[in-house]
Amino acid sequence: SISSSSSTASSMVERSDSEDEMMQGKSIYMVSDGTGWTAEHSVGAALGQFEHCLVDRNCAVNTHLFSGIDDVERLMEIIKQAAKEGAMVVYTLADPAMAESAKQACNVWGIQSTDILSPITEAIAAHLGVSPSGIPRGAPGHSVPLSDEYFKRIEAIEFTIKQDDGALPQNLHKADIVLAGVSRTGKTPLSIYLAQKGYKVANVPIVMGIELPKTLFEVDRRKIFGLTINPFNLQTIRRTRAKTLGFVDTMTGNYSDMDHVRQELETAGKIFAQNPTWPVIEVTGKAIEETAAVLLRLYHDRKQKCSMPRISKRY
Amino acid sequence: SISSSSSTASSMVERSDSEDEMMQGKSIYMVSDGTGWTAEHSVGAALGQFEHCLVDRNCAVNTHLFSGIDDVERLMEIIKQAAKEGAMVVYTLADPAMAESAKQACNVWGIQSTDILSPITEAIAAHLGVSPSGIPRGAPGHSVPLSDEYFKRIEAIEFTIKQDDGALPQNLHKADIVLAGVSRTGKTPLSIYLAQKGYKVANVPIVMGIELPKTLFEVDRRKIFGLTINPFNLQTIRRTRAKTLGFVDTMTGNYSDMDHVRQELETAGKIFAQNPTWPVIEVTGKAIEETAAVLLRLYHDRKQKCSMPRISKRY
Ligand SMILES: Nc1ncnc2c1ncn2[C@@H]1O[C@H](COP(=O)(O)O)[C@@H](O)[C@H]1O
Ligand SMILES: Nc1ncnc2c1ncn2[C@@H]1O[C@H](COP(=O)(O)O)[C@@H](O)[C@H]1O
Ligand SMILES: [Mg+2]
Ligand SMILES: [Mg+2]
Repeated sequence: SISSSSSTASSMVERSDSEDEMMQGKSIYMVSDGTGWTAEHSVGAALGQFEHCLVDRNCAVNTHLFSGIDDVERLMEIIKQAAKEGAMVVYTLADPAMAESAKQACNVWGIQSTDILSPITEAIAAHLGVSPSGIPRGAPGHSVPLSDEYFKRIEAIEFTIKQDDGALPQNLHKADIVLAGVSRTGKTPLSIYLAQKGYKVANVPIVMGIELPKTLFEVDRRKIFGLTINPFNLQTIRRTRAKTLGFVDTMTGNYSDMDHVRQELETAGKIFAQNPTWPVIEVTGKAIEETAAVLLRLYHDRKQKCSMPRISKRY
Repeated sequence: SISSSSSTASSMVERSDSEDEMMQGKSIYMVSDGTGWTAEHSVGAALGQFEHCLVDRNCAVNTHLFSGIDDVERLMEIIKQAAKEGAMVVYTLADPAMAESAKQACNVWGIQSTDILSPITEAIAAHLGVSPSGIPRGAPGHSVPLSDEYFKRIEAIEFTIKQDDGALPQNLHKADIVLAGVSRTGKTPLSIYLAQKGYKVANVPIVMGIELPKTLFEVDRRKIFGLTINPFNLQTIRRTRAKTLGFVDTMTGNYSDMDHVRQELETAGKIFAQNPTWPVIEVTGKAIEETAAVLLRLYHDRKQKCSMPRISKRY
């Protein structure tokens, strides 16, 4: 599944708002004094470890996210409700007293609980030799500074939207990363995922019979990445796409026809062979964030030439 | 800071690829058999607890992300390197033997370490009464299914891109969420953030002297949200924006002029007052993911009418 990295379990089958549907299956309560996305992301990753039983619906799981919980009264209400529902509780609470209250209340009610934030915060505190603030992100007076990073990310997103689907090829030199691949290799969602991380991305479709923009061969080659995919997967994706768009079979022409799919992938393969400096990433069976991880590892490794491939950041 | 939820510390000041710059400050190694985004996200949130010392650069922190680490040899190499650099190690390793090796090696080398995945996985296992698979997401044969969820998210992203900045107002009825606000209230990055979570979002700019699209008043009101911001913050953002675009002061006209900014916000305020069913969200000092959290809480609460506001999902 694609994910904004806050929900990575590919077994997530639907978003449901109805309380009825929530009656079956086990519940996980996620409680945060902030947005709750950290808890959601961690739970999503952990649920990946239970896919064998989630996909066949043997164990249905419902998650419930409670964000902005910064007073002990609401915290206690939620834990009481969790106990009623037989839910477990996962929490991120910056105030150590709140975290302790959550832990003890869960013990009292006899329910499973996990503190996502404290262990990592305490380890970092010991490592830095500095005490954590204990102040939640949403606390009064605690606002987000309008940093360079903030503006850089917004700019990356706006740039990437404008460059989607081969638009404005004259701007390719301004991109940090350029993606090339046939239709439905996930160029757009991958571009957006990378843009959220602060990279300016342009994507260029490879279409049979249409020439690639000249600028693609003029820009720094080290920022260009090819995407490729297994023809059977591509066909499935294209058929679903055609259905979504409401096309009937005769309208799609040969877009999802297997011979056509193969030919188009061959054309792309030839272009990639002619440009051996472009790394070609296989996207078959990968979630968008997995392709992003592979791409960024290559991208940073090329620039960095460290002993071990890594993505480094400064805080 | 904006973040694709994999980096939430607003103190992140730059992405750096140079090893020189990494010499100062303490290092945090993040190791995953998957993408590493879960570890990065958790570390980002935890670093938020050290902003008091990060912002004044008293404690510079460098993070190093090692993804796709699924054999014990590379794991040991990385931990050895961490010991050399005096780094701490944060890891997510699905295979319990790998996690145990990481723990013991860090103990042997005398370095801080935190296991992000095991505690939550073990708690969920106890809760569900099911054993975790122990198989990393990238393992051979372990591929992402082309689920409805997968296609739904891609569609949401593509829809949202096409609807940016008031485009195609005839499609507003197809959106899950519609955002209205003056220029630079963060409509575009917020739209994209929500799209990544699977919501089809359209955003409509409020510009003085330009009429809002009729369709905005024809669609289900419960999906429309207004965005508002403090005029001083808006001015700062607009000035930075103008600089980024390379405008000189005379070119920007009154775009970032305080009187103009105030007038425009007043216009927006009047529109919001005329449409009292639209919740108005204050974005001043909020990161994009914080605004998203507030908005989605309201959105789900309206549809759900649970006893306690929550965002529920089915896995
Ligand atoms: N920038 C920040 N400053 C302080 N605390 C933060 C920051 N970002 C995240 N946190 C804390 O980390 C936990 C997870 O945040 P969230 O993902 O917003 O739920 C919460 O307890 C937040 O209060
Ligand atoms: N869909 C999944 N199936 C199995 N394991 C997963 C899945 N998603 C995440 N994980 C595991 O959760 C941890 C964090 O994943 P990542 O965020 O990709 O580094 C890693 O140990 C992954 O192997
Ligand atoms: Mg596309
Ligand atoms: Mg915009």
